[in-house]
Amino acid sequence: MSLISIGKRMPAQVVNKDLQNERNKCTFNQEEFTLWWVGGEEQLKEKRSRESYFESQPEFQDKVPLHFASHQELYEETVRKATVIFTKVKKLLTEQGKYDEKKYVHFMEALLGTGFIKEGNPLGIHFSMFIPAIVGHASPEQQDQYLKKALNCEIIGSYAQTELGHGTFLRGLETTATFDPQTDEFVINSPTLTSYKWWPGALAQTVNHCVVMAQLYSNGKCYGIHPFMVQVRDSDTHMPMPGIDIGDIGDKMGYKGVNNGYLGLKNVRIPRTGMMMKNAKLMRDGTYVKPSSSVLAYGTMVFVRVIIVRNMAQSLAKAATIAVRYSSVRRQSHINPELPEVQVIDHVTQQAKLFPLVAKAIALKLTSDNLWQMYERTTSDLNSGSLDRLPELHAIACCLKVVSTSDTATGVEVCRLACGGHGYLTCANFLNYYSLASAASTYEGENTVLLLQTARFLVKMWNQAVQGKQLMPTVGYLQNYVGKQVQQFPWSDSVPVIISAFQAVVANKLRIACQSIEKRKAKGATPEEATNMTGLELIQVAEVHGRWFVLQSAYEMFEKACQKASAPLVSVMQNLCKLVVYDEALRIRGDLLRFTTMTETDLVKLEQNYEACLQALRPNAVGIVDAFDYPDFVLGSALGAYDGNVYERLFAEAMKSPLNQEPVNKTFELYLKPLMKSRL
Amino acid sequence: MSLISIGKRMPAQVVNKDLQNERNKCTFNQEEFTLWWVGGEEQLKEKRSRESYFESQPEFQDKVPLHFASHQELYEETVRKATVIFTKVKKLLTEQGKYDEKKYVHFMEALLGTGFIKEGNPLGIHFSMFIPAIVGHASPEQQDQYLKKALNCEIIGSYAQTELGHGTFLRGLETTATFDPQTDEFVINSPTLTSYKWWPGALAQTVNHCVVMAQLYSNGKCYGIHPFMVQVRDSDTHMPMPGIDIGDIGDKMGYKGVNNGYLGLKNVRIPRTGMMMKNAKLMRDGTYVKPSSSVLAYGTMVFVRVIIVRNMAQSLAKAATIAVRYSSVRRQSHINPELPEVQVIDHVTQQAKLFPLVAKAIALKLTSDNLWQMYERTTSDLNSGSLDRLPELHAIACCLKVVSTSDTATGVEVCRLACGGHGYLTCANFLNYYSLASAASTYEGENTVLLLQTARFLVKMWNQAVQGKQLMPTVGYLQNYVGKQVQQFPWSDSVPVIISAFQAVVANKLRIACQSIEKRKAKGATPEEATNMTGLELIQVAEVHGRWFVLQSAYEMFEKACQKASAPLVSVMQNLCKLVVYDEALRIRGDLLRFTTMTETDLVKLEQNYEACLQALRPNAVGIVDAFDYPDFVLGSALGAYDGNVYERLFAEAMKSPLNQEPVNKTFELYLKPLMKSRL
Repeated sequence: MSLISIGKRMPAQVVNKDLQNERNKCTFNQEEFTLWWVGGEEQLKEKRSRESYFESQPEFQDKVPLHFASHQELYEETVRKATVIFTKVKKLLTEQGKYDEKKYVHFMEALLGTGFIKEGNPLGIHFSMFIPAIVGHASPEQQDQYLKKALNCEIIGSYAQTELGHGTFLRGLETTATFDPQTDEFVINSPTLTSYKWWPGALAQTVNHCVVMAQLYSNGKCYGIHPFMVQVRDSDTHMPMPGIDIGDIGDKMGYKGVNNGYLGLKNVRIPRTGMMMKNAKLMRDGTYVKPSSSVLAYGTMVFVRVIIVRNMAQSLAKAATIAVRYSSVRRQSHINPELPEVQVIDHVTQQAKLFPLVAKAIALKLTSDNLWQMYERTTSDLNSGSLDRLPELHAIACCLKVVSTSDTATGVEVCRLACGGHGYLTCANFLNYYSLASAASTYEGENTVLLLQTARFLVKMWNQAVQGKQLMPTVGYLQNYVGKQVQQFPWSDSVPVIISAFQAVVANKLRIACQSIEKRKAKGATPEEATNMTGLELIQVAEVHGRWFVLQSAYEMFEKACQKASAPLVSVMQNLCKLVVYDEALRIRGDLLRFTTMTETDLVKLEQNYEACLQALRPNAVGIVDAFDYPDFVLGSALGAYDGNVYERLFAEAMKSPLNQEPVNKTFELYLKPLMKSRL
Repeated sequence: MSLISIGKRMPAQVVNKDLQNERNKCTFNQEEFTLWWVGGEEQLKEKRSRESYFESQPEFQDKVPLHFASHQELYEETVRKATVIFTKVKKLLTEQGKYDEKKYVHFMEALLGTGFIKEGNPLGIHFSMFIPAIVGHASPEQQDQYLKKALNCEIIGSYAQTELGHGTFLRGLETTATFDPQTDEFVINSPTLTSYKWWPGALAQTVNHCVVMAQLYSNGKCYGIHPFMVQVRDSDTHMPMPGIDIGDIGDKMGYKGVNNGYLGLKNVRIPRTGMMMKNAKLMRDGTYVKPSSSVLAYGTMVFVRVIIVRNMAQSLAKAATIAVRYSSVRRQSHINPELPEVQVIDHVTQQAKLFPLVAKAIALKLTSDNLWQMYERTTSDLNSGSLDRLPELHAIACCLKVVSTSDTATGVEVCRLACGGHGYLTCANFLNYYSLASAASTYEGENTVLLLQTARFLVKMWNQAVQGKQLMPTVGYLQNYVGKQVQQFPWSDSVPVIISAFQAVVANKLRIACQSIEKRKAKGATPEEATNMTGLELIQVAEVHGRWFVLQSAYEMFEKACQKASAPLVSVMQNLCKLVVYDEALRIRGDLLRFTTMTETDLVKLEQNYEACLQALRPNAVGIVDAFDYPDFVLGSALGAYDGNVYERLFAEAMKSPLNQEPVNKTFELYLKPLMKSRL
């Protein structure tokens, strides 16, 4: 087959010279950046040793990339790889003995988050949802019964909440668990087609247990959604248990290896003690005992959203790494006709696509660090009985989940399109990152619904501020805006002032939205109708509030880092901070013109400052993405490898196509030849 | 397996009652809308007869949906279906006898554009590129030799232009065709890895001929890119011809059935007459004869872009159809707590996602009609020797290709996300529409490059206007803005005034961009460097110019249609027109605040008008998408079917998964059981 010498097709041993030139230009110490990015020497050492372990294991290598496989083959191969990983994990967790949230999160991120199985890990949900559900909902006795078994994989579980007919709106779930006092059991049912559980990962063919969320009925009364432990498949035969209708929901845009399933239950009986009773309880006589507070459920939701923001930052950083490296290798068209074609990264339009995303990825990571600190403070407050800051944390986590997922999804696509046609190839791996980010826009709370939740909180805070009440820190700025005549915020182009201008935008838009709600109520709308009618204004307010928090977090975290960093790195960090702030400011330029004293001249100046940041970042673009420290097998992209041998790698990937393993496909004799030779 | 009665899983025979209620509310005559949308009675009749023919053919039905198949199985099945279609087509074309562009386009759209093969048709490029290349480039003698054979599929061909190392920048292509006067042949070579042809559809395993674009060398001199007919596979055995290295480039985000290929050539000899000589010629002695004009190549590019705009309108209309129907069936959360959960389409935030896209799809379709008329006028001018309006047509086609592809890609994703988790399922079919639109952002000219081409034209026109020269119609409005002091455009909220405000935005931003270029030149930049540095300003100008043209086209076409339409339809059309205009105006609100007299009050009023349009559209939303008249098998979506039996269809699609054909997958015994039973 090969007329061109095979040598040309194999990744060369040397680094592409354009990429090497970029590295030579880098002005800062990359190891210093990396240490800051991963959180310290210990973390870096651990990360690298884990990566080199997995990279070296022959059991994780695909002979043929899974994107050439069928739906069924892909599932079977991902299960194989997942069990290889988790045999190792089982050992690790068993050794650890005791459940420790912090270590657990770290471990989960390490093993699930770094792309060891690109198509998603069908055992992932066991660790990311099933075990946390036991920890969050099971009583101490139930933990004895289930947690150890789950931690060492004697049982494998999923978490089933979403139904065919209901997702984000939990109260609408239809699955029922009815207490039968005669037998001291619950009878669980899917009373309608729409009550079928639909979407839980690994539910289809993989797990044998499941935490099922169902409406609890006792003595004819409904007590709302509660968690129940249900065995769905036999431990020895893996056959579905009696009354269980279970299977695969089919192919999806991404997470193709995750084995998302459906579950129907018909008169499935479980003991009363199968209800997870850490919080609410049902007594032997059917008496319902309310949980002491409903905040723990809140806590878990917030926790998951913190993780999402962090994962988004990583996905965006990976996509940006691929695109920045490729743009340094790819040469296309001339800027000056007499000179050679330029690196694509020298086109200002390309810089404006990619560099703000590099800065955004970092800003999101810093935001997740900040949010994590808030989460820890709030959790420790909770443990000492204070629930005050939970609504605030919940409100900010909602809008940050939205901003991080939507910006990452959009940003990954910008990266992909910036790589032209080759970005469209599966082996570039953008579709994978896009699918992950895009799924996160829907799961764990649909984005528009979450923005409305944040907005409702902001409206409440605004009204409290109007009444002169003290507000919580993340919304404290609203107090500066109530009760006054609308004043334009005094614009200047310093970074902290721009960030404060975002507060002015939120406050003014919130004021207008609150007025709209009042006007609509005055015209006869119910409060709920008025809120629905004001939906477009409200989601804008919540989004800008989230964006303000990202900028504020990034600014504070950068300032802190700069206190310890070397001068060259300080300069890089300051530029990154400015870039993300200017970029966000230009995005809402219309609002800034409305609510601040910004003039036409100021706006032109802002655009110039933005362009200056792009120019300042240019020599360090490759240096920064290198310092993110993603090994090639984690990036998983023919376009983004460290050596920059883009074309050789594209060819090598194409050579793996099953269609290239024979010179003539059978369809020639079967279909094409008859078409060509037929005379009509 | 089934505990829930199987009846619940099968699509019910009745229409969902919420959807039926929507239809009952519709205020206009849908058949009247449909006739306008498809272009008349004859077109509608033909469309419906074609659709019912294909729908009824058992040979086009998939037993198992192709998204469950492997890469190779998918290719083989799409070739099968493609040859079934084209056996019919071959008959049709042979009967027609003579090539007729208009009929041909119509036929192509009919057979390729309507989703008979969702994954893309591997014979599509034979009709969409190979045959048009022969028509556009072959001399009369060559047409005798190739056209008939191609029309009746005796040969099957592709068109190879893009290389691994070069796409949009054609001058950079590296493939060479060197004339050998000794043998009167061309010797064609791929001198480097990056010169490999990469991406042509059907090239991998399907075709046996190919029009190859290569740098023509004669007597040691390079004459630039020209087309050459190359036989790549043997007619009888389908084995690659000597010197031909050919194969599959691997899996992609979309167009998975299209069999995109690579092609390397090593000393491949073809007769001199294998160069396509309708335009340029090479004589027996190696003398090169220039084409009389280079405009024909331009013409083809414009033609393809017209088709793209039209296809985008169709894709967006289909995605909107699916999302609007689903949003009418799906009920989620309460607006008023005492009332049942509402249809999702009653949430204002959902309306704001979908209704502007319905209007946009129609506006894009009207724009493509307008562009097509311009194309026909320009072609007829060309035939009478006048080339004046070609650059104008080219410039507008460039930016419209950008606006239509990027808005459609974004819009399809908005539709998908508006359908929540279920939109993520492959059987919802959004990923397919997204992949098609997104690919079109890159092929036939990368979008940023095209915007820069339009911008360069606008800069040139601006400078001509400054010199007092008369401008061509689509840019005539610039004349109103040169030479004057910057004045703010007098805002009012009437539709034609808003459309003119877009002109003011283009003109003012263009003025500023031209000043930036001059300043940069004054500081020592070459004109090309100055243009590159001004890239961000330039692409914004070009985009707004394109958006203005869309609005202007839609407005004129709606006005024309309203003259003939019944009163209820007029009212619907006027509302659609307002909606698309307001939506676009709000998108550039920042620029309107800068360059028009729009005040804060005006802006709030505009937002209110926009919301009023959403409300006015609400009762007709389903009526309008129904009137687009896409049959279920063309939409190909479990969420968007006419009967609205969404949940039954989702279940039926899931049941087709190969994983659901056995109760326990073999991976249980192979991997899961050993993991669960192992003791550490």
